[in-house]
Amino acid sequence: MARWCVGIDLGGTFVKFGLLSEDRQAGPTFQLPTLVDARPGGVIARMAEGARQLIEGRGGEEFVAVGVGAPGPLNIAEGVVVAMPNIPGMENVPLAARLSEALGLPVFLENDANAAAYGEFLCGSGAGCRSMVLLTLGTGVGSGIIIDGQILHGSHDIGAEIGHMIVIPDGEPCACGQRGCLERYSSATYMAQRATRMVRQGRASRLKAVLERKGSLDSLDVEQARKAGDGLAAEVWDDAARCLAVACVNICRVLDCDQIVLAGGLAKVGDELMVPLMAHFRRLHWSLTAPRTKIVFASLGNDAGVIGAAAVAWRGSG
Amino acid sequence: MARWCVGIDLGGTFVKFGLLSEDRQAGPTFQLPTLVDARPGGVIARMAEGARQLIEGRGGEEFVAVGVGAPGPLNIAEGVVVAMPNIPGMENVPLAARLSEALGLPVFLENDANAAAYGEFLCGSGAGCRSMVLLTLGTGVGSGIIIDGQILHGSHDIGAEIGHMIVIPDGEPCACGQRGCLERYSSATYMAQRATRMVRQGRASRLKAVLERKGSLDSLDVEQARKAGDGLAAEVWDDAARCLAVACVNICRVLDCDQIVLAGGLAKVGDELMVPLMAHFRRLHWSLTAPRTKIVFASLGNDAGVIGAAAVAWRGSG
Repeated sequence: MARWCVGIDLGGTFVKFGLLSEDRQAGPTFQLPTLVDARPGGVIARMAEGARQLIEGRGGEEFVAVGVGAPGPLNIAEGVVVAMPNIPGMENVPLAARLSEALGLPVFLENDANAAAYGEFLCGSGAGCRSMVLLTLGTGVGSGIIIDGQILHGSHDIGAEIGHMIVIPDGEPCACGQRGCLERYSSATYMAQRATRMVRQGRASRLKAVLERKGSLDSLDVEQARKAGDGLAAEVWDDAARCLAVACVNICRVLDCDQIVLAGGLAKVGDELMVPLMAHFRRLHWSLTAPRTKIVFASLGNDAGVIGAAAVAWRGSG
Repeated sequence: MARWCVGIDLGGTFVKFGLLSEDRQAGPTFQLPTLVDARPGGVIARMAEGARQLIEGRGGEEFVAVGVGAPGPLNIAEGVVVAMPNIPGMENVPLAARLSEALGLPVFLENDANAAAYGEFLCGSGAGCRSMVLLTLGTGVGSGIIIDGQILHGSHDIGAEIGHMIVIPDGEPCACGQRGCLERYSSATYMAQRATRMVRQGRASRLKAVLERKGSLDSLDVEQARKAGDGLAAEVWDDAARCLAVACVNICRVLDCDQIVLAGGLAKVGDELMVPLMAHFRRLHWSLTAPRTKIVFASLGNDAGVIGAAAVAWRGSG
């Protein structure tokens, strides 16, 4: 008889549900709207509802525990959501305890980026690694760090924020209050913002016409303009690859992990990102040893979060 | 009856010896010349000789194990020195096994910077921490990382090289082959080198007279000139503090440790370093949370290495 853990990825728009068996087989996933207006009680009820659907769909099979990935800040050891800006009232909510009460199963809470990293580590591109860093290049740059099989939380649950590593001292201002953070150069959203600003400042670019036609730019526009030989797009794209390479070298120097795994929207372009990234990485990397840390793409796609959350539940109950 | 582990810090000039009791009391330390010309056999005999002095000096007390801190590269798990540039012939030497055979005690090998970090973590400024980073600001910038009580080695025993974190992309070239490494700005030796170069390039500075008189500069000269109002010295000193602050912010973002502990020659100046460092650190640190990681000075001085090596022996035999 199969034994399962449920994984739940709590986002501001959707709650995503999935399953992971004891032998690391993932089941199908589905999602429900988050019902943010229902406040914490309604959100937790929605999480319990989805989990029950999964459990009842496999009548007679054993369910061991539930893992929840949620955006921070969290108190992970206590299973408490300290704050969740997208959900009104979700402040200092003992989410793990309340969901556990609703479902009659142990519930383990984890930062969503850490859960995704743990998913890739156990079941995705990181399988077989001892240590791994996940960088998710999307709206920002999310990250999770696994060292010797353990998720790195930090002493105050604010570790593994590699998106806010300073890669250009006194560089572009970031919403976090720092300047020159990695995510100001190498996230999909900020690349598009930088290109938009440069066009509006009067820099010549074929992106000017795209901006006028569409009203906004995204990272795909930048990438397409770069392929078409646009200088501004090439500059923004190359800066993104270069700053990401600086971060990768620094990850090697600090953590010396087996792999750096790239996920998120920007990773979908494949070699368009990997080729310039690796060129910068090899140029910037020390010559004392050849690069030992591999840089690869993630393999679980959008399921990394739920699979990782379920894996966290397996670990917590093991 | 007291139970002891021996700590040995193997350097290119001296081998240092010390003791640590089961309840973390350190005994007196002493050192012997390394006898580099005696090749590995002679160096290992010298290490055994010093350890026997310690053991025979406490006749009847119990000795449990020996820890050795050595400069890399090492294969830590196997107890093998891969190479040690200062000692001819010290290549792929199974140092732990050979010293163990000579002494009849288990021997544990550790990177010297990691051993010093572990010493400060268990018995020095880091006592009571869960996670700690040691930065030794001397000839270069050495570092050791402790996470949840474990020494971070990395997947290829080349982690915790924070001295080679890139803090100024495309900055000063480093002997490691990178550019803009932390140690090119914030180590005592390189600060003096930078100041020397700037004076020789014709920059006006009261250090010109010092250089002509002494033939060379050290970091104390830079510090004294800065206190006397010298602009060049102030620039070099401030760059050192600023780059160290960038590294400290990045350590917080990646590791979120309890403490960053500063050791080495440059740390001896105290507030002359700490005041500008903290000013830059607070300015560069994000505003999402107040700084949670404390920056403090080391407390074990030059004994951190031997005490840490003995602590590694306790851990290995525990």
